This record gives sequence, structure tokens and C-alpha cells, in this order.
Amino acid sequence: MDQVADFEQMWRDLTPIGRSASSGGYFRQPWHAAELELRAWFREAATARGLEVEEDPFGNLVAWWGPAADFAATGKILTGSHLDSVLDGGAYDGPLGVASSFAALDLMRERGVRPTRRLGVAAFVEEEGSRFGRACLGSRLAVGATTWADAAELTDREGVRLGDVIEGPADGAGSTMLDGVATYVELHVEQGRGLIDLDAPVGVHDAIWPHGRYRYDIAGRADHAGTTRMEDRVDPMLTYAMTALAANKQARVQGQRATFGRIDVRPNGTNAVPSHVTGWLDARAESDAALAALVGEIERQATERAERDGTTVTVTAESVSGEVAFDVALRDELAGRLGGVPILPTQAGHDAGILQDAGIPTAMLFVRNPSGVSHSPYESAEMADCLAGVTALADSLTGLVTAQVTA
Amino acid sequence: MDQVADFEQMWRDLTPIGRSASSGGYFRQPWHAAELELRAWFREAATARGLEVEEDPFGNLVAWWGPAADFAATGKILTGSHLDSVLDGGAYDGPLGVASSFAALDLMRERGVRPTRRLGVAAFVEEEGSRFGRACLGSRLAVGATTWADAAELTDREGVRLGDVIEGPADGAGSTMLDGVATYVELHVEQGRGLIDLDAPVGVHDAIWPHGRYRYDIAGRADHAGTTRMEDRVDPMLTYAMTALAANKQARVQGQRATFGRIDVRPNGTNAVPSHVTGWLDARAESDAALAALVGEIERQATERAERDGTTVTVTAESVSGEVAFDVALRDELAGRLGGVPILPTQAGHDAGILQDAGIPTAMLFVRNPSGVSHSPYESAEMADCLAGVTALADSLTGLVTAQVTA
Repeated sequence: MDQVADFEQMWRDLTPIGRSASSGGYFRQPWHAAELELRAWFREAATARGLEVEEDPFGNLVAWWGPAADFAATGKILTGSHLDSVLDGGAYDGPLGVASSFAALDLMRERGVRPTRRLGVAAFVEEEGSRFGRACLGSRLAVGATTWADAAELTDREGVRLGDVIEGPADGAGSTMLDGVATYVELHVEQGRGLIDLDAPVGVHDAIWPHGRYRYDIAGRADHAGTTRMEDRVDPMLTYAMTALAANKQARVQGQRATFGRIDVRPNGTNAVPSHVTGWLDARAESDAALAALVGEIERQATERAERDGTTVTVTAESVSGEVAFDVALRDELAGRLGGVPILPTQAGHDAGILQDAGIPTAMLFVRNPSGVSHSPYESAEMADCLAGVTALADSLTGLVTAQVTA
Repeated sequence: MDQVADFEQMWRDLTPIGRSASSGGYFRQPWHAAELELRAWFREAATARGLEVEEDPFGNLVAWWGPAADFAATGKILTGSHLDSVLDGGAYDGPLGVASSFAALDLMRERGVRPTRRLGVAAFVEEEGSRFGRACLGSRLAVGATTWADAAELTDREGVRLGDVIEGPADGAGSTMLDGVATYVELHVEQGRGLIDLDAPVGVHDAIWPHGRYRYDIAGRADHAGTTRMEDRVDPMLTYAMTALAANKQARVQGQRATFGRIDVRPNGTNAVPSHVTGWLDARAESDAALAALVGEIERQATERAERDGTTVTVTAESVSGEVAFDVALRDELAGRLGGVPILPTQAGHDAGILQDAGIPTAMLFVRNPSGVSHSPYESAEMADCLAGVTALADSLTGLVTAQVTA
């Protein structure tokens, strides 16, 4: 078998799914048409390789190598990533990790690797939170960090409840896909410029920055845009605009990240002063303390401006994730096995962070992205770098699946 | 007949139609369910009074008093207003003028007025432009200021073409509803605080401020909100935010009006720097020169900020209406007949302005709004003031319909 041709074929099969002809970006929201097609592709890729597919009650998928009876029930090795995308996102964020996992498994078989531990390729659902607003929803449900009772009530932008899209577990049961999993390794496209600056195709992440999403509900008073004197207005758009600028400035000043990229305006009419503006702040920082300082300062400035505008601001933390430090021994083992590749933190959340937080030793490999751009149609990766990623993943997994299982 | 009870009953019939239970505001977009119900109400109100209903090919309605054969074909008097609302608007903007017209006709009949000119009650369609984006669309089509070929291609937010909602005229024919109309009188709820400050229930408008709607298309580059360094971003939300604040400040400084109340963001995801932000500027000023100065300064500041952000701004004037001066002789005649009521300009666009621009002598009466607020659920009017408006309209129309028709 030609591994290069195989990976390239998988990539050609994935490329058209959920692609917007106008922007070139991807729309792969969970349980919508494109993502369902990706799930079917996953099952076909697994079946073609003789792997056994398990789907947990939340829609997470795993393709297992070999019958369970051939391996111990514990000490399993899991690899994989996710298939969904942000709205108008790139081709690589998620699917690169899943396709590379299948390709790494192919390469290990070709090399004659005989695993002593069971290996699975996972695809976690709704990693981006682009449909139901909760990032890493599938892995949070799998580890039990989010309950089904809570998740079932999440609604998408059309008001559809997750509980009406999937049945979920019967009688409060959970996922068993992580039972006996000793280690998780996720490969991902890089979401920044680290490997460009270091001139390296592949690296290892050591940590994920703390990250929070905060909803700013700004209430004003609807009014006629023509007849209402400027001094008589209570315009929440002004409070929003100043807050978006303040967030950007504070993140620059403090060397962190803050973004207002999503907004909902009511009534959103050209000739009406809005009654209500909702904006979402995405904030990330190098430490929990730095994140708290950043979001505190943005909220302070928003509240100050609201007083001036006569509006009211209510800030709700929709999700806050503390710093994740990946397993140090595992990280050093992989970096050593890969010949001393760069070790860098990431500012992006990942299912790997959820699994690490849940006590499963976890590592992340990442592949150079020559655009440095992510969550965007411009995200990219060279084929040669992708194949270097497959080889690095195969090398990493080979060491793990052939290691002795210790009690 | 009890005129008060009749008007109050009409108002009770209209109040529930298209009202949002959550906001208390009105959603009466053309050819959607609520507005269709209002059109049915109009036909019933006309039929109950023995009036003859005419609908032109664009959906504008007129209820005529008496058979055409009893009157000359020219010198007709038209009154009325519109039935549609802005999104989440008030109960009075539009329907007050239509209901008051029917009530004024009732009062004239009760008083035994015998018209020598034909009188019609009109309801122009899509006055607010809340569905297809073009304010006063019905009256613009009726006078021929907008062609059907142009209007048919307008689309609503769901992408539906106007040409697929209504058939329009056959063979490029136009509306005949204004044929022979000598004078138009529109009654409207006040959209500001003029009559509150002057302590008067009814006034007459002398002019409409110049008004423009401008679309700001701001292009940036989509990026990951966590991993992209602040200094590497091309974020159109920043350009938008600064422009919205600059518009507000310039309008204050120059004593005019400028509003950014509508926005469309792509991809509009919490964890993505937007690729594109579209904002709509509504600007009004006391003169054409003042409007040009205002929008020029806002565009200059937007372009300056865009250079700093690395974004590009394209400004498109979607509609610009010059100053409208209502017919001076008619205005003075009505103000005199009504005992010297206040005469004030309005900053709001109206079908009356379109008809005046098309050469039909036009006047506007307006009724006090104790909230001073408009295009909002808070818009209001006291019943006593509404009835004073009906009487003032009946007095005005009586003088017009009994005047001699001159060649």
C-alpha cells in the first residue's frame, strides 16, 4: 500500500464536504447534513480497515483495532480528534487529526507493529461548540464533566434542543468509550505561527491557556433613528462598540487575547435605535490570574460606559476553562521519540484538554500551518507536513501500544 | 353613532394584530401573517362603510367614498397612512392614520358633509422598508419614483424576492390609484417631543429632513479568536465599533442624527475573528448640505480607522431622500382651520413626502406622543389626543372635499 496515496485519497474525499462555494470555508455543524456525511465517512473508513465502530449515547465515535477479547480491558490507547468545524472554518481543524489517525494506523500495520494494548481512533462531537454553544461538548459528556440533563437543554440558533436532536443515554447512563483508556494522543493543525517561526513541520503542546466565553447582555431603549434627539437616546450599540474596542486594547496591553466576534441585535432595523445588544467575549490568557484580570478590566470598562449611555450590562460566564498542563512524562517521551521537536503551549481549547482534566494522561502533536490563520477558510497545511504528522503520530502510538501494561 | 366608541372599537380590533407577547412591540412586515390580517381588516372597515376598495398592482389599498360616477375624475382628495411596522415597533406608527381616516369620514358623514370631490382612504404598503429594505416602497411605486423592474429584485432577509411575493403589474403598467388626486393629507403619531414641549395635542408638519441609509461593508480576515496574536489580526469588528461611536459623536457635535442600529457579522461565532461586518448607517440632517457633511465625516473616520485595522470599507448609499417641503398654501390653510396649531418639521420619512415630491400638494397632521419615543413598543398616544386628531382631520378634509374643483 502507498501511504501517501492513501492519505491523499482520504483528504480528497473529505475536502468537498460542507464547503461553501462562495467563501471556500466549511460549515460542519453537528447533526446537520455535512457533519452527518463526515460521520458516514468515518464509519466507512473504519469498516474498510476492519475496525470495530462504537458510538456512545452522545454521538462520539471510536473505531477500535482488533477484537476486545485480544486485549486487556485497561491500558487502551486512544487517538483522534473531531470532525465538526466553526462556521465558515478551515478544512484541517479537526478532520486532519482523524484522517491522520487512520493513516498512522495503516502505517503501523504496514510496519508490522503488533500492539499489546488496544488502539482506538476517536471522533468527538461538537468540539467547536458552533451549534449548541458549548465547546468540547462531546468530550465533556464522555468524561462526565457535563451532565446529559444539562446538555439536553442546550438550544441551537434555531431554538432546537439538543435533547430533541439525539436521544441521549437511557436512565442516566453515561459513555463507556473511555473505560480503560490509559492515554490519549490528539494530532491537530497548528493554530498560530509557532512552527513557522521555528521552521519545523511538527511540534508537541505542553499546555492550553485558560479560556472563557462571556455573554454581554446590554439593554437600552428602542427608538426612532430619525426623530429621537441624540441626547434622549439609550443606545446599547454604543456600549457594545466601546466594550469591543476596550477588549481589544486591554488584550494588547496585557499581552493576552480578547475578541468580540459574535453579536445579536434587537430589533436590528436600519431606522431603529436597538432595544438590546448581546455580544460574546472570547478571552484567553497565559494563566488563570491573567484571565481574571483581563475579563475584570473589560467588564469594568463596559459598566462604566453603560452608566454614561444609560444602558445596563449583565455579564454571564457561559464557559470558563482553567489552564490545562498536559502530562509531563508523556510529553517528554513523545518529544524525545520524535527527535526533539518544539514544545509550545496552545491558546485553543481541545478535547485533549478535557481528557487531561479528567485524569487521562494526554498529549498533543501539531502540524505547521503556513497561513498562521485558523477558524478561517485561509487555514492550511502542506501535504508534506501532514505526512510528517502521520509519521510522528505513528511513531508515538507505536511506542504506546507496544509498551507493557502495568497495573 | 358614537364616534368615540367607534374609534375605540377600531383601535381594540387593531391592537392584538402582530403584537409580540414578550416585548409588547409589533411585527407587521408586508405580506406576512399580521400584515395580511391588517389588510383584511382594512377591507372589512371599508365594506362596512359602503366604500369601494381599489388595490393597485403593488399592494397599495384605497377605500373610496361614493361611486366614481358621482364625482369629477380629477380633484380627488386622498387621506390615510400605512399599516406595516418596523420590527418590534409601536401600535400607532401607521395604523393611527388609517383608523383616524375612517373615523374622520364617519364624522363627516354624521355632520352631513356632502363632498363635491371624491375622498379616498389609502394604506400604502411597506412604508417602513422593514421587509425589503426600501422605505416608502409602496408610494414610490405608486408615483413611479421606483420601477417595478427594480423593486421586483429586492429580497428580504430570507432571500425571498418581492417579485415572487406579488405579481406586480402586467406589461409594465403602473398604479392608477393616484390618477386625478389633487391633494393628500396624512395623519401620523408624533415621533418626537415637539408637542409635549408645546403642550398641544395636534400639529402640522412643514417639512421632512433629508435622510439617507448607507451600507458599510467592512472586510477583514477570519481567524481563531484564541490563537491569533492581537497584532496579527485584521478584525472588521474594530472598524465597525469605532465607526458606530464616531457616527454618534458627529451627530451630537453637528446637531443632527446618525445611528448604527443594524449589523450583520460573518461568521458570527464566539471563537472567530469575523471575516466581514456589515453595518447600516441611518443619517438625517436639517438640510441637504448638513447631511452631506455628516455622512462625509463619518465615512472619513471609518476609512481612517480601516487603514489602522488593515480592513477595507465600502460605503453604498442604499437610499437618499432630499429635503421635502410640504405645500405651503395647504399647510397654512389647515393650520388656520385648526385654530393655529403648532407647525414643526419631522425627521422621519413618510409616504406624504414621496407624494409631495411627485408634485401632489400634500400636508401632514400629527398627534402628540407622550413617550416621545417611536419605532419602539414604548410609542404611545392618549385616546383624547387621538380623538382630537380625528376631529382635526375631519375639519381639514371637510374644507378640501367641499371646495370647488378648478381646472
